[in-house]
Amino acid sequence: MIFDLIIIGGGPAGMSAAIYAARARQKTLLIAGEFGGQMARKEVDIENYPGLGKISGLDLIARFKQHLELLAGQTKIGEVFALKKDGDIFKVSAGAEELQARAVIVATGAAPRLAGIPGEKEFLGKGVCYCAACDGPLFAKKDVAVIGGGNAAFEAALFLAKFADKIYVLERGNQLRADAANQEMLQKTGKARIILNARILRVEGSKFVEKLIYKDGNDPRGSEIELPAAGVFVKAGNLPAADFLGGLAELNERGEVKFDRQNNQTKTEGLFVAGDVSEVRFKQIVVAAGEGAKAALAAEAYLRQSQV
Amino acid sequence: MIFDLIIIGGGPAGMSAAIYAARARQKTLLIAGEFGGQMARKEVDIENYPGLGKISGLDLIARFKQHLELLAGQTKIGEVFALKKDGDIFKVSAGAEELQARAVIVATGAAPRLAGIPGEKEFLGKGVCYCAACDGPLFAKKDVAVIGGGNAAFEAALFLAKFADKIYVLERGNQLRADAANQEMLQKTGKARIILNARILRVEGSKFVEKLIYKDGNDPRGSEIELPAAGVFVKAGNLPAADFLGGLAELNERGEVKFDRQNNQTKTEGLFVAGDVSEVRFKQIVVAAGEGAKAALAAEAYLRQSQV
Repeated sequence: MIFDLIIIGGGPAGMSAAIYAARARQKTLLIAGEFGGQMARKEVDIENYPGLGKISGLDLIARFKQHLELLAGQTKIGEVFALKKDGDIFKVSAGAEELQARAVIVATGAAPRLAGIPGEKEFLGKGVCYCAACDGPLFAKKDVAVIGGGNAAFEAALFLAKFADKIYVLERGNQLRADAANQEMLQKTGKARIILNARILRVEGSKFVEKLIYKDGNDPRGSEIELPAAGVFVKAGNLPAADFLGGLAELNERGEVKFDRQNNQTKTEGLFVAGDVSEVRFKQIVVAAGEGAKAALAAEAYLRQSQV
Repeated sequence: MIFDLIIIGGGPAGMSAAIYAARARQKTLLIAGEFGGQMARKEVDIENYPGLGKISGLDLIARFKQHLELLAGQTKIGEVFALKKDGDIFKVSAGAEELQARAVIVATGAAPRLAGIPGEKEFLGKGVCYCAACDGPLFAKKDVAVIGGGNAAFEAALFLAKFADKIYVLERGNQLRADAANQEMLQKTGKARIILNARILRVEGSKFVEKLIYKDGNDPRGSEIELPAAGVFVKAGNLPAADFLGGLAELNERGEVKFDRQNNQTKTEGLFVAGDVSEVRFKQIVVAAGEGAKAALAAEAYLRQSQV
């Protein structure tokens, strides 16, 4: 059996594409390791998906899933580890199975990037974390550090402020990239200290993390500074999940999939991309959803043409 | 008083941009002739805005508006008829006022395109219509014709099937462009007849429309064919609302605004575009919402840089 379309990834881009494909009556399968993508790891309520006001990540995922079920979209839980094209047919290796489709949309998103500092791997799960929503409650009345200065770092810090006594936010550069709204909200908690130009050296502890060591980047000869912290949350950007594509798509210097912006097609005919795994500049839920719709409509046009 | 950002247009692109700008604490004003854009003229329930399942156009507009109000976004009803740039400042002529801003997002959408056939203007409001949701109920137990073969034509025909006895759908080309889902649903009504290769000649009547005259495009020497119809609904595409831009933006051959796909900027620094007025290929609510978010984030980055 050959599907018209296989969509790989269950975040907003993949689910939006699946909603469009279901309406277009394509024989479609969505394969995902989990539903929701990074929405599942959102630390604070989402308030920028237009039309839904303030909503938790899990509730927004549930709404996308319900929508897809309403349209009878077919889904499957599984990790895709390889993609090949044989003539006009794509072969998708998922678990022990090989599935076939005439077109594929890659919407696998991106995973957290490591900070790359000594002690990070050693103390993984012993104080070093990547998801405040998952691990934040463990740090009640403790001090924690967040590495990063973007929205993800501030959203993590905001969530941590519900539990922790004090939150250090360490940014390598000399300015923050987070929204003014997030910066204001964090200030209002009265629990945060922002440290710019932080050259982070290592995580230290015995059984669990006890401190984060850094230097002032403007004073490289200065002495090391110790921050007492029981938790270190790394929010250092993302790694696009594009490894399994082999040579079918071209990647940019950040490992993101390059694509034609009008049609969302990669360098391979019939292979489309949408959302955070792509080189779209703004990694946002509604942007990913819009890109998923574009990819599905372009795939539909491709399938229609290739049937003639 | 100079705004950071003026957003022109109240459809999904403009409202999404306003939601993002409000979160970014930009001093922003959204100006629109009405809210909702083409969503206000949607004939059937919308079922492809991800996360909201089946929803009427008016309910979806209300949700966007509520969302913007939740974030205290400032709005103003008015028609913009000219835009100029004076040094670094944009001047927006709206009614009798001239408003000023450091950046502008154009999200004015598109208006229905005329079919350009004899009788069309003469019988405007006397049987020739552009909005089935507005005028459909007037044609109860009558025969009507829909000009066009895309989703808009099929959605109009579906709405008309609630009232009319018979619906002719006339498409100029030799294939339909509407979704399989819409085609199936229309078939199920048992009231529609699809006519491909229709070369439409004119609308005829006395006080009101009485018939639509066409020829078979494959047989140009053949005789004229008369369709008895009390209503003729024109669904022949859209006219982007870009006239007021003067020379600030470059337009393509369809009159759509050209832009940089990564940043949504036009050829003028600080002037951004989003949604159906732009040359984005797919004219969809969620695509427009995603583009609005992109334009707002790019405008924010522009404003931050231009302040340094």
